[in-house]
Amino acid sequence: MWRPEAVVQTLAARGELWEAAPGLVGMRGEVLALYRALEQALARLSATETADDWQVPPGIDLATLARAGYFASFPQWLTAVAHLSEDSDVLEWIATDPDPAAAARRALGTADAALAPAVCYHIYERLAGRTISHPALVTAQGTCWRHEGTRLSALERNWAFTMREIVCLGERSHVEAFRQRGMRAAAALAGALGLDCRMVQASDPFFAPTARGKAVLQQLKALKHELILPLGRSRGSAAASFNNHETFFGEAFAIRLATGAPAASACVAFGVERWLLAFLVAHGPDAAGWAALNRAGALAEAT
Amino acid sequence: MWRPEAVVQTLAARGELWEAAPGLVGMRGEVLALYRALEQALARLSATETADDWQVPPGIDLATLARAGYFASFPQWLTAVAHLSEDSDVLEWIATDPDPAAAARRALGTADAALAPAVCYHIYERLAGRTISHPALVTAQGTCWRHEGTRLSALERNWAFTMREIVCLGERSHVEAFRQRGMRAAAALAGALGLDCRMVQASDPFFAPTARGKAVLQQLKALKHELILPLGRSRGSAAASFNNHETFFGEAFAIRLATGAPAASACVAFGVERWLLAFLVAHGPDAAGWAALNRAGALAEAT
Repeated sequence: MWRPEAVVQTLAARGELWEAAPGLVGMRGEVLALYRALEQALARLSATETADDWQVPPGIDLATLARAGYFASFPQWLTAVAHLSEDSDVLEWIATDPDPAAAARRALGTADAALAPAVCYHIYERLAGRTISHPALVTAQGTCWRHEGTRLSALERNWAFTMREIVCLGERSHVEAFRQRGMRAAAALAGALGLDCRMVQASDPFFAPTARGKAVLQQLKALKHELILPLGRSRGSAAASFNNHETFFGEAFAIRLATGAPAASACVAFGVERWLLAFLVAHGPDAAGWAALNRAGALAEAT
Repeated sequence: MWRPEAVVQTLAARGELWEAAPGLVGMRGEVLALYRALEQALARLSATETADDWQVPPGIDLATLARAGYFASFPQWLTAVAHLSEDSDVLEWIATDPDPAAAARRALGTADAALAPAVCYHIYERLAGRTISHPALVTAQGTCWRHEGTRLSALERNWAFTMREIVCLGERSHVEAFRQRGMRAAAALAGALGLDCRMVQASDPFFAPTARGKAVLQQLKALKHELILPLGRSRGSAAASFNNHETFFGEAFAIRLATGAPAASACVAFGVERWLLAFLVAHGPDAAGWAALNRAGALAEAT
C-alpha cells in the first residue's frame, strides 16, 4: 500500500498531475486514462438503475441553494462566481494597472451564481413543483466545489471535484430500497477494483450549533452511510455516500406523489477523485499494477 | 432551416434544455446525446493530430491570466470564484439570515481563482520555462467562462461553454501548418455534418483603445480565421477559431525552442454548443432529421 502523499508526488514528478491552485487539479497520461476508466465504471453502475442521464448546468442559482436549506447546513464550503464590472472606465483601469490581477480582484461585482457543492441540487430544482407518478431516477456527473480551507489536498480533498450522483424520488420504501441497492453496488465495485471497503453509518458535517440536532437524528434513524476506502492502515476516505433525505427536498421543492404527499428522496454520490486516489494507494502509481481495472470492467459487462 | 430561438424554445418545451441562470445551460435526452456525439467528433478530429490529451484544472490562477496578457485584452469577460469567509460568526449570521443567499453574496471574500476564458492558458502555464525539442501538441476539452452581459443567449453565447482546443508550440512554419490543417479538418467536419460553412479572416475583440493596434496587425498578417456556421440566411456563429499567436505566448511563458528562441504557438478552438446549435438549426430539433450525424461518424472512422 502506497502513502497518498507519495502517490501524488510520484504523479506530479512524472508530469501527470498538477494543481493550478490548491485543490484545482489537472491530469494527463496514464493517470488520466485511469481516472476516465473509473468515470466509466461509475457511469455503468448508474446505468443499471436505468436512471435518466443529465448534464447539469455549470453553475447554480444561489436561490436554489437557499431553497434547499444549504446555507443553514454547509455555508462554510460555498464557492460563488462573479464577473467584472461592465463599466468601461473600470475595465480600462484594470487593463492598464501594473498588477491587473489584483485590480481585477478589487473590481469584481457581487456573485451572480454559485458553483454547485453537489449535483443533486440541480435535480431538485428542475423537478420543483412536479407531481411524479412513479419513482424518478436521474443520474449526472458534474464538477462540484467545496472550499475546505487549509484541509484542501490534491485528489483526497479537491476544491473542485467530480461527483457522479444518482437521485431517486418517490415513495419512502422505494427510495430506501434504491439507497440499499446503491450500497451493494458500490461495495461490489470496490471489491472488483481490489479495494477493501467499509460501509459506515455517518452524519453530515452540519454547520452551527442550531444544526447539531440534525446530525443526531440522521445517526439515530440511520439515514446516511458512507463507503470508506482505505488510504493507509488507519486512514480512509469517504468515497461514496448514500443518503435518505426522507421528504426534506420533496417539501422544499414541492415535488409531490400522485397522492399529493411530498415525495421522499435519496441520493447515491461518488467522489471520482477519491476512488482514483484509493485505487492508486492500493495498486501503486504504475499502470503495470492496474490489472484490477480490467477485472472491474469485466464485472460491469457481466451485470 | 430553423430559427435558433425556435430550436431552443422547442427543446425547452420538451424538457431537454434549461438554464439555471442566464447562459448556464443543462441538457438531457436526445439533445444531450447529440451534444455528446459532437464532443466525440471533435475529440476524434483532435486525435488525428496525435495531440497529448489533458484534463485541465477546473479553475486557473489569476496570475496566469495576467502573465498571458489577458487583462489588457479581454478583461470584460472575466469570471472569478470566491469562497465565503471562514469566520464562524459570519457563517452563523448567514446561516440564520432570513435571506441567506443575499447575506452570502455580501460575505464573499476576494477572488481566489478565475474560471478560464479559454483552455489554452492552462497549457502555456504548464509548459512555462520549458525548452521543446519538437513541436508540442496538446488537446483538452474544458468548460470556459465568458460573461458577455446582456448578449448571453442559450447555446449561441453561453456564460459557461464547452471548448475543445488543440494547441501547437514549435517553429513558426510548424505552427502555421498545424493551423492550416485545423482549418481544413474543421471545414471537412462541417461538410460531413451537412453544415454550410464559411472561413473568414477575423480579429479578436480586444478591449480598450490602446489594444486596437493589435486587431489591425492581426488582420494585416492574417493570424486569425473563424469558421462561421449559419444560424439563418444572414446570420452566423463563429463555431471554431484558428489562431497564430506568433511568439506572443512563447515569450510570455518562456517556452523556448532548442535554439533558445521563443517558441511560436497556434491554437484551434471549437465551441461545442455552437456546433450543436448550428446542427439543430440546419437539421431541426427532432432526432429523425439527424442522419448527417452518422455520416460524420463514418467519415471520422475512414480518416
